[in-house]
Amino acid sequence: MLTNELTKLLNIKYPIIQAPMAGGTTTSKLVAEVSNAGGLGMIGAGYMTPFQMREQIQEIKKLTANAFGINLFVPNEFTVIEDEIQSTNQIMNQIRDELDLPRKDKMEVPHFHMVYQTFMEQIKVIIEERVPICSFTFGIPADDVVAELKKHNIILMGTATTAREAIANEKAGMDIVVVQGSEAGGHRGNFIDENQESLIGLMSLIPQAVDSVSIPVIAAGGIMDGRGLMASICLGAKGVQMGTAFLTCIESGAHQVHKEAILNVDGDLTVLTRSFSGKWARGIINKFIQEMREFEENVPSFPVQNALTQDIRKKSGEQNNPEFMSLWAGQSAALAKEQTVETLIQNIIAEANSLKFN
Amino acid sequence: MLTNELTKLLNIKYPIIQAPMAGGTTTSKLVAEVSNAGGLGMIGAGYMTPFQMREQIQEIKKLTANAFGINLFVPNEFTVIEDEIQSTNQIMNQIRDELDLPRKDKMEVPHFHMVYQTFMEQIKVIIEERVPICSFTFGIPADDVVAELKKHNIILMGTATTAREAIANEKAGMDIVVVQGSEAGGHRGNFIDENQESLIGLMSLIPQAVDSVSIPVIAAGGIMDGRGLMASICLGAKGVQMGTAFLTCIESGAHQVHKEAILNVDGDLTVLTRSFSGKWARGIINKFIQEMREFEENVPSFPVQNALTQDIRKKSGEQNNPEFMSLWAGQSAALAKEQTVETLIQNIIAEANSLKFN
Repeated sequence: MLTNELTKLLNIKYPIIQAPMAGGTTTSKLVAEVSNAGGLGMIGAGYMTPFQMREQIQEIKKLTANAFGINLFVPNEFTVIEDEIQSTNQIMNQIRDELDLPRKDKMEVPHFHMVYQTFMEQIKVIIEERVPICSFTFGIPADDVVAELKKHNIILMGTATTAREAIANEKAGMDIVVVQGSEAGGHRGNFIDENQESLIGLMSLIPQAVDSVSIPVIAAGGIMDGRGLMASICLGAKGVQMGTAFLTCIESGAHQVHKEAILNVDGDLTVLTRSFSGKWARGIINKFIQEMREFEENVPSFPVQNALTQDIRKKSGEQNNPEFMSLWAGQSAALAKEQTVETLIQNIIAEANSLKFN
Repeated sequence: MLTNELTKLLNIKYPIIQAPMAGGTTTSKLVAEVSNAGGLGMIGAGYMTPFQMREQIQEIKKLTANAFGINLFVPNEFTVIEDEIQSTNQIMNQIRDELDLPRKDKMEVPHFHMVYQTFMEQIKVIIEERVPICSFTFGIPADDVVAELKKHNIILMGTATTAREAIANEKAGMDIVVVQGSEAGGHRGNFIDENQESLIGLMSLIPQAVDSVSIPVIAAGGIMDGRGLMASICLGAKGVQMGTAFLTCIESGAHQVHKEAILNVDGDLTVLTRSFSGKWARGIINKFIQEMREFEENVPSFPVQNALTQDIRKKSGEQNNPEFMSLWAGQSAALAKEQTVETLIQNIIAEANSLKFN
């Protein structure tokens, strides 16, 4: 059951993919260790410059001879609305006061053509560096981008939150689709269906996606151990993608305060918020989410809001203060452990094997 | 794997429980057929008078010699706020106009002491009729009620939407706990945790509940076939409770328009609303949900709002108009089939057996 068309396609031993968490979590050590332990390590390159990407790819190649992958954010068109930015920035200034950060008057915000240009340069680096696997979040790239990557034999993985989005991924030429359940931590990857409608639990999402497409389906969201792996396989997935479980690993680059928030979660439940970035994402509730609750429907779109909160998140981290950082975590955060990547993967496989029914 | 402590405790062949859907869906024929086919049929008695309950219990006893169960709504204290009722009733009057229903000036609404008295009479009927299994939704009954039922050897099943709620059920003396994932159709059963926080997918909820309690856990929400049954068992559940899958069965008493809405769902996604009853519940989106969207946070509590919408839901049904009925459905509605209970259960077991790994 654990060797299948997906493991063959990705050239990996176990059908375990480390979720490409953007923002510094996926260190070269984390990615390489996952691939060395028989899974698929993934670089979360969503916020990286093409230069940073190339550096990390080259570093990982020195640490593993096995396959690894990279994830990009597909740019969605957005407009910069000055009024929205000004009113949100006023609220941000109050939070800056709380953190002893200088107030800001004029915000530098990203513009779509710049974001798109960076994306195209990222694609170029992936082709030049011959990264074997590339996955996408927040949408599907244009046909010519897909064609160019396929010409270079790069295996493409899309993200879907509904059966409809899985079908769109298959139609666009993706080789594999990751279905992200409502359990998942971090950003929601929906791009066709509205947020509420797209919040589908994996028990519903996996079988519906599997029945709708013929490409292999990978399950993501709330999977932490061999139980989740075998459950996903029962539902028809060929493998799993795990974020929170890898985030608390020794090799992960997540902030220690973030790791501890997950490891000590003890019954606290996660919530969805768009206050940090302008896109809905799941994390552990803190002061920032609570204070922003009443404004969150009106903050600017991604990635504008992400730019507006950058100094706040950074300063909160420098102060080891969990209250103003994005503490992304899935709904199974309580099952996370501090351990090495190797131990995590070995334990998953041992537990999965023990569940083989007789 | 399919015979375990749960099937022994409930005295059933297969670990498949038919969800106790209130409001006429669980006909005597449906309940008895489920029990005759090796599962556990359940009466959804939430809205029944003690008299109606007794009648149906006696009818089912004639149709099956096997174990069956019954579900009650545990009354939550609520206050009747006249202003809230008046303002919501004004909106209802506009909808009544659309349906050619007479407007209402003065609403008769339930009061807590009456609801509680009915609940205590329901408990009395269950004891007198020796119903072997009783489950609860919306909370846990008082200690003396639990003690009285246990004295009569009635097996008690609680409902939980979080690990915390599962622990509360075990502590209160429940013999079994049904964990309701965010995928589930109909009313949310949360009673400690707030709605957003309690919307946990089964991939996260089952293992966390199983790790938190020592009583058997039953999984509910989005489970439609052998894949869902085996996935739930991998995650540590001892059985499954299925609603939507039984709702579209030939023997179910759900309105034909409701059945057809589910059978033809074709990519439409379900949403949560509290506009029908005052409690959050999942169903297929229709005109009523859409028109009430902007008001739904402000409608009266359950069961006051339920009383306010009763004539509207009834008239919509009489007109075979799906737009103003509560079309409760789980997130796997697209997997529902029109079939007999026996075929459904046989297919689940055959599929589950085919998934036994070798």
